[in-house]
Order: sequence, then structure tokens, then C-alpha cells
Amino acid sequence: MKLQNIRLAVDAIIFGFSEGNLYVLLIQQKFGTNKLQWALPGGLVQNEETLNEAVLRELAEETGVKINYLEQLYTFGDKLDRDHRNRVVSVAYFGLVDSSKIIVKPDTDALHAEWIALDEIPKLAFDHNQMVKLAFQRLQNKLTYQPIGFDLLPKEFQFSELENLYCTILHREIDRRNFRKKILSFGIIEETDKILLKGAGRPSRLFRFNKKKYRELEKEGIIFEI
Amino acid sequence: MKLQNIRLAVDAIIFGFSEGNLYVLLIQQKFGTNKLQWALPGGLVQNEETLNEAVLRELAEETGVKINYLEQLYTFGDKLDRDHRNRVVSVAYFGLVDSSKIIVKPDTDALHAEWIALDEIPKLAFDHNQMVKLAFQRLQNKLTYQPIGFDLLPKEFQFSELENLYCTILHREIDRRNFRKKILSFGIIEETDKILLKGAGRPSRLFRFNKKKYRELEKEGIIFEI
Repeated sequence: MKLQNIRLAVDAIIFGFSEGNLYVLLIQQKFGTNKLQWALPGGLVQNEETLNEAVLRELAEETGVKINYLEQLYTFGDKLDRDHRNRVVSVAYFGLVDSSKIIVKPDTDALHAEWIALDEIPKLAFDHNQMVKLAFQRLQNKLTYQPIGFDLLPKEFQFSELENLYCTILHREIDRRNFRKKILSFGIIEETDKILLKGAGRPSRLFRFNKKKYRELEKEGIIFEI
Repeated sequence: MKLQNIRLAVDAIIFGFSEGNLYVLLIQQKFGTNKLQWALPGGLVQNEETLNEAVLRELAEETGVKINYLEQLYTFGDKLDRDHRNRVVSVAYFGLVDSSKIIVKPDTDALHAEWIALDEIPKLAFDHNQMVKLAFQRLQNKLTYQPIGFDLLPKEFQFSELENLYCTILHREIDRRNFRKKILSFGIIEETDKILLKGAGRPSRLFRFNKKKYRELEKEGIIFEI
């Protein structure tokens, strides 16, 4: 067998949510053949780091965003020429953040790092559009059976923000009364003692996610389904 | 950055079901440092083949088993010394077959290839026990929302075989009356005109899976949930 000549990379699809819109964190390369083209943050894995360390490092280096955990999405290795310089197989990870809290600071490798609205994403380098598409499908699926939406919201949020997030990501209207009843019956969110006064609108109670309660339900095998 | 020195491999976790038991397809190496130790079928990816081609080739070479489709499970690359000869990152795939129909024939690389019952799996080479564990979790999860169980059964099967499969894999009793009602109401299985005569027992109707109906339900977004 010929010596293996395949490079291993990682890429990160980071979703953010802000003011009713879903965003993806993208960078614009300063150098290389894909100069000026938008791409996902990512790069080659170093010999002495785990895949998980590699993707967090690339993300921090290229966008300034530091997060602790990303979930492995899929390994892209069935298109041999996805990178025309050399065969590269890439392990894609995805993560969710409250984008209003995250400050994006590109470092020297990247010209820009920016939150781009999901429906305004241009043609990306490599097969990165396909990666975004798969990550979004995974997000939609998971949202219906895991309370991952809370990762996209501030620690304290209005109920209407949670509803909007579900409508935005699932691309459909939800039955708001049933949704509220269902979510509250799980006991996984709880009222805070704070009220938000919004201009002329009605004052609005703030809620927070109860992670402990969720872990308990999870242990009991209770399925969260919207 | 130092030249990347990471090898890329694929491994296959193939589940089979036969006479009420769940099996995993394992091989025993003839050569190498893990000589005689049991392992999953797998090996290094060649430069000119996709990941999917690589895993199907390794599977056929090492066990004689030819199948068309495997699902990507997870990429194992966070333990740097999972193979002590060189750093190897492995993309694990899993698949389901009716093991009574599959003839296992190891080729020259493997001493044995055998179906080993899930609860009798010995200490495997590398991190292969962890791979099997993860694949089994995925199988359990998927079984509750996708009709993947049919891949483990003969084309025509008795209803009791389907029930046993669910009990075996989910490790729990199921409410047989409700299960029957639910499965039949989905319309995804249908009666054949065949009856199986089993010794002194009651004659038993044979059923088959209706893939077309299932695809239709899937398109409509109907969730199959047991």
C-alpha cells in the first residue's frame, strides 16, 4: 500500500442567536487560494492535540471566540478533492452560543470574523456550505428533543424570546399556548424575580433554564419533545 | 507547524440479530502487535478511496461481508495513543444486518471472523470496546424513533420476532398489545399471505416492512416513536 497522504483538519460551525435571527460565525481568509472567500473557522490538527483541542484552538485563533465544548457533527471525507491542494478529511464540530455576549476578534490569519445571518450566507470555501446545512439540520432535530435552545439565549430571558427562537429555527409557527404549557410542565425553566420593563409594552417576566432539573429528567429517561 | 503525522483509519461495528440475540461482527488478527486479540474489522484509508469505500472494502476483505451502506457513527481522535505504533484517528461506522443471511469468510489478514454475542464481547484491541458501546447506544436511541430494526430481520418475519428484537435491544419488556397496535397503525409493516407452521405451536402470520410507506411518512415529518 502507498504511504498515506491525507491531511486531517477540523472545522467549527458556531450558531448564534440575536434579536430573533440565527447567525453563523464565519471568517474571511487573508492568505491562500481562497483569499477573501468566506469560510468556517478551522484548520489542520496538530500532532500532539486532540481533535477537540484542535477545533477550540482554531476557533479561538481565528475568531477570538473561546468556548468550552463543541459537539462532533460529522467527518467529511467522501469528496476526495474538497481541498484542491491536498486530500484533506475534516471533522466538523458544532456549537451554540448567545451571540450578543460573544465578542468576535479575528487574529492575524483572518481578515474578518463575523456573524452572518443564516439566510445570507454566501458561497463558502471548500464544502463549507454543506457543513452549515448539515449542522442546521442537526440543530433543528435536536431542538425538538433536547433543550439545547437555551445555549443560544442569555442566562435570563423573556418567554417570548424562547418562543421566537423555536419559530425561527424550526421555520414554522408554534402553538404558543401549548408550547408554554409544555415547557413549564417539564419544570426545566423557572421564573426569576425580575421583570423587564420594555418602553410602552407590557412588563415581561424573566426566566432562566434549570439545568439541574433537566439532568434529573434525563436520568429518568424522560424525553423532552416539542 | 510540524508536518502532520497522523494516520486516518476506518472501523466498522456491524450488528446482527439471530434467534433473539444481538451479535457484533469481530475479527481476530493473524499478524501485528494485537495478534490473536479480537478487534473490529477496519484499517487505514487509501489515498484514492472515500471513507465510505474504505470501510466497505475493509469489511469485505476481513470478514467477507458485503453490504452497501454503513452509517457514520463518530470519529475517535481524542486519545492520542489509542494505537501505540502511530497516532491514528479512526472514523467509526455502524451497520445492521440479518446475521442469519450473512456468511462470514475471513480472508488472509484475519485468522477468524465471527459473530460474537454483545454480552460476551472480550477485551478488544485499541479503543474498540468503546466504539461498540457507543454504537449500541446509537442503535438503542435510533430504534425508538426510526424503524431501523427491520434491517436486522429477515425480509419476512413473525410479529413476535419484531417484539423480541425491541425487547432485546432496549433491555426492557414492552407492552406487547400497545406495541402491536402502534406499529400496525403506522402502516409501515404489512401482512404477507404466508403463514408459518411451527411444530406444535400456533401457526404464525408472516409480515414484511413497507419501506415506501415509511418514506412517505418521513416526508410528511411524522415521527415514529415507540
